[in-house]
Amino acid sequence: MTKKAILLLSGGLDSATVAAMAKNQGYELYAISFQYGQRLAVELEAAKRLVTAMGIEEHRIVDIDLKQFGGSALTADIDVPKGDEIAASEGTIPVTYVPARNTIFLSYALAYLEVVGAKDIFLGVNAVDYSGYPDCRPEYIKSFETMANLATKIGVEGDKITLHTPLIDMTKAEIIKAGTALDVDYSLTISCYDPSADGLACGECDSCLLRKKGFDDAGVKDTTHYMAQS
Amino acid sequence: MTKKAILLLSGGLDSATVAAMAKNQGYELYAISFQYGQRLAVELEAAKRLVTAMGIEEHRIVDIDLKQFGGSALTADIDVPKGDEIAASEGTIPVTYVPARNTIFLSYALAYLEVVGAKDIFLGVNAVDYSGYPDCRPEYIKSFETMANLATKIGVEGDKITLHTPLIDMTKAEIIKAGTALDVDYSLTISCYDPSADGLACGECDSCLLRKKGFDDAGVKDTTHYMAQS
Repeated sequence: MTKKAILLLSGGLDSATVAAMAKNQGYELYAISFQYGQRLAVELEAAKRLVTAMGIEEHRIVDIDLKQFGGSALTADIDVPKGDEIAASEGTIPVTYVPARNTIFLSYALAYLEVVGAKDIFLGVNAVDYSGYPDCRPEYIKSFETMANLATKIGVEGDKITLHTPLIDMTKAEIIKAGTALDVDYSLTISCYDPSADGLACGECDSCLLRKKGFDDAGVKDTTHYMAQS
Repeated sequence: MTKKAILLLSGGLDSATVAAMAKNQGYELYAISFQYGQRLAVELEAAKRLVTAMGIEEHRIVDIDLKQFGGSALTADIDVPKGDEIAASEGTIPVTYVPARNTIFLSYALAYLEVVGAKDIFLGVNAVDYSGYPDCRPEYIKSFETMANLATKIGVEGDKITLHTPLIDMTKAEIIKAGTALDVDYSLTISCYDPSADGLACGECDSCLLRKKGFDDAGVKDTTHYMAQS
């Protein structure tokens, strides 16, 4: 019998790698992506490219209005920090933090899981390069899993929901090496917080810098489509 | 200093009672309601009436598309069970179950809490008359609270988020007595799963029957606006 799994698919490097890992373990993937704010529309295009390229079974795009709650550079009109501004904010929770984002995403994933009849959720959170987001830590993931099993028919009926976070302890370089070994085409993905309208990465934000360094450290050619640098 | 709290406000009898209890404890209320499917639009009208009548500080209505996940009489085109059909389905999780509903609602409440700077969430779940929904049980609420504290800035920074479920162990009659003592105007509320377009309760669904029995048992006059019975 085919094992179905829900995949949180952002269109970034991490979720593409997780997709390849889950498929490699024999899962049939039901991907869920989220539309919120303007900046991440190009991520959604990347997600759609990955769905086609990686043979993902089904793709649901959920429209959520995080903007009405404000409070973050990724959803409100606050500038994304670059260069020196990043160093200045180290050790604090970054301005790109979106209130309860992963909790909202995982809640929809849980609804999708119940409808599809899956028992597994894959997501690409990472606690090494996690940039200070509280909802990327292993203890958070574990607590969501506990809650999910109490929240649902599946849990009540004695079965078990599992959250899989294969990247959680990996460096960006290790992730890129693992994905490359599984033939992930990273040129399809984007990780930039501030991409151009046609989907080019800025090359300068926190996320782009982590990604560049990852390819460097992994010794893998960076096929990311960057804007022409000034 | 004013204590702010988030209130999950459905427009039903239970959430109106919780609103009165929280206000009585000195909280300034930030209410959140959810728009999903067609049937509950009249509930939303009731929620708006309560916001005005009870002096609630702010009201956010979040549009969520649970319908795309299907699988429930409250969101899909399945008939709501009535009369004998209710008895036939006892002991099982009812057809009116919506996948991950409370988890999705509470996740948005958590985002709202972070933005408002509140530390408390009030909700009217009830484990006595809970009709078999797994996400109305105390152990579920506790696990969401644990997760919420790991998910957010507030938890990370050493403060604590609390979920308040004052109705959880109360019978419907006890809830109605408590709300009546706090001057809740129940004629503003609606609990029906299958109301008319102009907001009259059917008087026959599981939820209406529980409500009627509650007023009977409490010895309180039922001011609910019911459809004319055939």
